[in-house]
Amino acid sequence: MGGQSQPRRTLRPLGTVQLAMLSEFDLIKQYFTRPGRPAAASSGVALGIGDDCALLTPKPDMQMAISSDMLVEGRHFFAGADPLLLGHKCLAVNLSDLAAMGARPRAFTLALSLPSAEPDWLAGFSTGLFALADAHQVALIGGDTTKGPLTICITIFGELAPGCALRRAGAQLGDDIWISGTLGDARLALAGYRGELTLAAEALAQASGRMHAPTPRVALGVELAEAGLAHAAIDISDGLVGDLGHILAASKLGATLNLDALPAGPALASQPPALRRQFTVAGGDDYELCFTAPVGARAAILDLAGRVGTPVTRVGQIEHEPGLRLVDQTGRLLDLQLAGFDHFAA
Amino acid sequence: MGGQSQPRRTLRPLGTVQLAMLSEFDLIKQYFTRPGRPAAASSGVALGIGDDCALLTPKPDMQMAISSDMLVEGRHFFAGADPLLLGHKCLAVNLSDLAAMGARPRAFTLALSLPSAEPDWLAGFSTGLFALADAHQVALIGGDTTKGPLTICITIFGELAPGCALRRAGAQLGDDIWISGTLGDARLALAGYRGELTLAAEALAQASGRMHAPTPRVALGVELAEAGLAHAAIDISDGLVGDLGHILAASKLGATLNLDALPAGPALASQPPALRRQFTVAGGDDYELCFTAPVGARAAILDLAGRVGTPVTRVGQIEHEPGLRLVDQTGRLLDLQLAGFDHFAA
Repeated sequence: MGGQSQPRRTLRPLGTVQLAMLSEFDLIKQYFTRPGRPAAASSGVALGIGDDCALLTPKPDMQMAISSDMLVEGRHFFAGADPLLLGHKCLAVNLSDLAAMGARPRAFTLALSLPSAEPDWLAGFSTGLFALADAHQVALIGGDTTKGPLTICITIFGELAPGCALRRAGAQLGDDIWISGTLGDARLALAGYRGELTLAAEALAQASGRMHAPTPRVALGVELAEAGLAHAAIDISDGLVGDLGHILAASKLGATLNLDALPAGPALASQPPALRRQFTVAGGDDYELCFTAPVGARAAILDLAGRVGTPVTRVGQIEHEPGLRLVDQTGRLLDLQLAGFDHFAA
Repeated sequence: MGGQSQPRRTLRPLGTVQLAMLSEFDLIKQYFTRPGRPAAASSGVALGIGDDCALLTPKPDMQMAISSDMLVEGRHFFAGADPLLLGHKCLAVNLSDLAAMGARPRAFTLALSLPSAEPDWLAGFSTGLFALADAHQVALIGGDTTKGPLTICITIFGELAPGCALRRAGAQLGDDIWISGTLGDARLALAGYRGELTLAAEALAQASGRMHAPTPRVALGVELAEAGLAHAAIDISDGLVGDLGHILAASKLGATLNLDALPAGPALASQPPALRRQFTVAGGDDYELCFTAPVGARAAILDLAGRVGTPVTRVGQIEHEPGLRLVDQTGRLLDLQLAGFDHFAA
């Protein structure tokens, strides 16, 4: 558009640099700020998007819980993924980390690398993102936008009272092991997409809902922590075996899991037993909570779970003997070739 | 390695899943945790790397300043960039955001997408990162590692007293405009790499040091804020014109800049005047501070700058008339085709 520079030069005073809004900032302004909706004061947001830093005012005597997740196209989601679902999922996985710590969500930053600034994509993505953000009253307070391979990095902030955090290292001998919701449907959807097995269209649709739009168990995690009912927790992102393994390693204890007690997702439930076992115990992408709690808390936990509307299931026991033992409903030890999900595995 | 699974199966008890350390976690552990160096209590880090969230204990009555930057290979740095310098730079640009707000650095998270886990690269990157982190006593408290295009996202946390933040919207009529350090050498290095001009090897080496290893002006920003000497500040990442433009827009004021007063970097200083003007006023990647302060604070600012060892230069004035006017040392208005740097510009 070189032909435009000559006329434009005559339109503005000599020596005056036009402070044009730059397209990157337009972009951010248009899709990620909502002028009519200032950040809720309850989130402690003293200053949101638009300066060098955001400012949060922590509640007195509260700790801040912080987690960061990076999602990469082709690794964590398919190329061409629905931007609305992607906006939901990238915040959901971060909310899930806060839930696993028992922290109440307050605010988050979003760093976004995009191959190009597509209005349709940005509209869908921001709609999915803000729908979940609003549901959890968590404010977008800042971030970064750049051109590059599609990559989404959210850092999230929550609050909790000192001593209340559900740490991985907190499991105690004799604790029950609990799982929220159901497991394995996200892995089943992946198997369907990959052609590892053939799924009926209805089953694939059902399972893929879990894969694309996980439900972070925020209320369950926060209330378990605030009521002091659980000793340890983690969210199941890499598969139950691997994630429970982190609790066992951090707590220097072992466990037995009853594979037949593991709650399979509705789509997975109608699959053959071997597949059901494999995908519930090592599926990944579930974003359910795995937590441990004393036997005496069983009734209170079931009551709390009913109150927040999230089913929970007892699936095993924390034991002194190191390692993780898998048994069937009769208590018989099972031999399974199972492994967690590792981003750098071959 | 399918042949190994048969013998291994006989080595562990039936039904026991081996909780092998996964390579991703090995990677993080090896390069990004330093067992001998627990996070300083002064950083308020109650829990660092290794759980679902990190935990920070904010100092009483302090606000938390938060900033997030994403650096993408091929966009913010060249493919094959020295990992040690990259480790420095990705933290430096975030420290620079805290400096521009006047916040004292406390902690940061690192999300890293890597095409492969190369020990040499990780060793260099973490060395550069931790050298700068240690210099500013800022603790790495968590993050994420995944496989993908080389992308680095750091979110940084600092603290400051309520009301002390150096906001973009704080400039006042009649304020001096100040610049820390020197401008334009990073842009000169870029011009050399791109072949836009031919530089002597010595000049290129000198300029590229500024491009690859910027110095965040943390002490200057923090002390300006704590002493209440400055009204507004921003760090110069996209070029002075564009970044000062953000202060003017947020403060609803204009300014006149004396182009001949702009402090050019040592390599740029020996270039022709036209180039010197262009690269100082709109170079980008400088990571110097641009701040505004009342005329009465001049002596105190020069004193403070001397104390923290960062030179500062007065380069203009905040005025009522909107827009940015560029003048030479005689006060004559200049006409320049200048623009800020926009990631989504063609």
